[in-house]
Amino acid sequence: MRIHDIGGELGLIERIRETHGAAIGDGLVLGLGDDAAIIEVPKGNQLVVTTDMLVERIHFRKDWSDYYSIGWKAAAVNLSDLAAMGAKPTFAFLSIAFTSREKVENLDRIYDGFADCLNRYGARIAGGDTNCAPDNLVLSVTQLGNVVNGRALRRTGAKQGDLILVTGTLGESAAGLALLTDLGAARAEKVDKGLLNTHRRPQPRVMAAVAAAATGKVHAAMDLSDGLLGDVKKLCAASKCGAKIDATAIPTSDTLRQVADLLGKDILSFALDGGEDFELLLVVAPEDLEAVSSAITDTGTPVTVVGEIVKSGVKVVGVDGVELNSESAGWDHFGL
Amino acid sequence: MRIHDIGGELGLIERIRETHGAAIGDGLVLGLGDDAAIIEVPKGNQLVVTTDMLVERIHFRKDWSDYYSIGWKAAAVNLSDLAAMGAKPTFAFLSIAFTSREKVENLDRIYDGFADCLNRYGARIAGGDTNCAPDNLVLSVTQLGNVVNGRALRRTGAKQGDLILVTGTLGESAAGLALLTDLGAARAEKVDKGLLNTHRRPQPRVMAAVAAAATGKVHAAMDLSDGLLGDVKKLCAASKCGAKIDATAIPTSDTLRQVADLLGKDILSFALDGGEDFELLLVVAPEDLEAVSSAITDTGTPVTVVGEIVKSGVKVVGVDGVELNSESAGWDHFGL
Repeated sequence: MRIHDIGGELGLIERIRETHGAAIGDGLVLGLGDDAAIIEVPKGNQLVVTTDMLVERIHFRKDWSDYYSIGWKAAAVNLSDLAAMGAKPTFAFLSIAFTSREKVENLDRIYDGFADCLNRYGARIAGGDTNCAPDNLVLSVTQLGNVVNGRALRRTGAKQGDLILVTGTLGESAAGLALLTDLGAARAEKVDKGLLNTHRRPQPRVMAAVAAAATGKVHAAMDLSDGLLGDVKKLCAASKCGAKIDATAIPTSDTLRQVADLLGKDILSFALDGGEDFELLLVVAPEDLEAVSSAITDTGTPVTVVGEIVKSGVKVVGVDGVELNSESAGWDHFGL
Repeated sequence: MRIHDIGGELGLIERIRETHGAAIGDGLVLGLGDDAAIIEVPKGNQLVVTTDMLVERIHFRKDWSDYYSIGWKAAAVNLSDLAAMGAKPTFAFLSIAFTSREKVENLDRIYDGFADCLNRYGARIAGGDTNCAPDNLVLSVTQLGNVVNGRALRRTGAKQGDLILVTGTLGESAAGLALLTDLGAARAEKVDKGLLNTHRRPQPRVMAAVAAAATGKVHAAMDLSDGLLGDVKKLCAASKCGAKIDATAIPTSDTLRQVADLLGKDILSFALDGGEDFELLLVVAPEDLEAVSSAITDTGTPVTVVGEIVKSGVKVVGVDGVELNSESAGWDHFGL
């Protein structure tokens, strides 16, 4: 079925509104169907806003993913940015551009994946835009959220002596991508479909982030989207400090080890430089470790200390505190 | 200069932040440079949110416009949607995708045009996203604004007997586009550069809309983006009513008449079906006409009564109230 068959853009918007448009209430005063949405931010809260665009052939490939997962990931990457601020996600706006050849069923699957991911974390679709595109599919998302006044987690605020924490395990999304790159989708799916799903349908750490922010004890935070090493560097630049990462402490899964072995690649490379982990990177004072850790683990989210904040410079150390570098570790993109 | 030469995406973001990023204060708690922006909505206000995407070769062509105007228009179409709600614009988020061949200077001009248009209406850049694209330039904007609780203008609320008002003059943007289509950019510029600018750099009716909303007397409103006739139909569908438009009352300029004559086209076609006027369409009770009109004209904006709300059906009448249709009027797309 083509867009033309359902009455063009107006038909598509009506279709989206009926199936996935947020109902009025719980902060939404006016949703899809007028010139703009009207939203109420609860008293004592600040509004948090993030926006992220996904472009076909740059951020995703149709032969490496599926329409549902493309929609899911568009929501997840934005929810992860909100999680990085400790904000509770509320309303999302999805603008999409597609060719006139695109089937309505495919667009339905994108909206299904997008809405399912949002709904899982308590967020809903309040608006957007639909457009023709000459060729590549483009998704652009703006995600709103609320945070209690002054409780947002920022990249600034890390202090010398603080501990560096990460949630979950690292490197699996990058390993999933490597499987697709090296083996192609058909063979990759036979090796480890779960790992591919980590790459295709990431789970943003919304609940853990909200719980961590509620402690009021997190000094700095961001989400891991460009790899632990690169992201620690960004956080340190914002906080004007350095960091020492303990490579032996980085949490990785058995699955990652198996796939790294299969592909003949370094597990540390995936964990440090991989990207798209969408885990949380948190910085807390040693005396607050227990309080923040238990708030996070209470949401069913594992959390691990992987290093500490130092005065300046960002380095990675291995067994016995020996500094690792690109040669010793075999990293592909050290110093990115 | 290429993106590569200024340190890639990070360099570009730093460049945008330094030149155009909103300073902290006046509602902005945290701007460009973290995972998300933090914004305060003033007490007694609701948040209004709109989003619009512009795709090269669909919404604009580089040979028919210029980078500055492309940026300007991306801001203007979003500000116009906010104006349609009677909201005061605050913060904008611009996501952009461009090929690696794009010059930094061109991107600078896009941001200049975008920021100049925002600033003109009191809005500022609080965030966004920069991306590679395989081919076409894509701009996706989310514009936030504030409106006093319950004072937003909606499409619903028009009542039988109400008057239909429009601001400014209609059809010029469409005539500008027709000049470009029929004559090409070089010849079109020689005919009437002012008309091309109406098309390339529309002026959203922000101040007039805020003033109209403040009267509390507007029954329904939207902005004119798809042509008067099509947009009246949309407003009537939302308000569950009909409309009678008086073709002889539609405000048009001498410039439009001259260009219509030159191109051998019907002036009424431009005014009724043209699109991209970005004027306001307002519905008020006859007894409130004076109050709403003077609020609007006090902002230096002309306003004209062009028809009335009836029970059902949307029709256009000419001299002596004779109903016009596509044959009599010579419209190209009647009944669109």
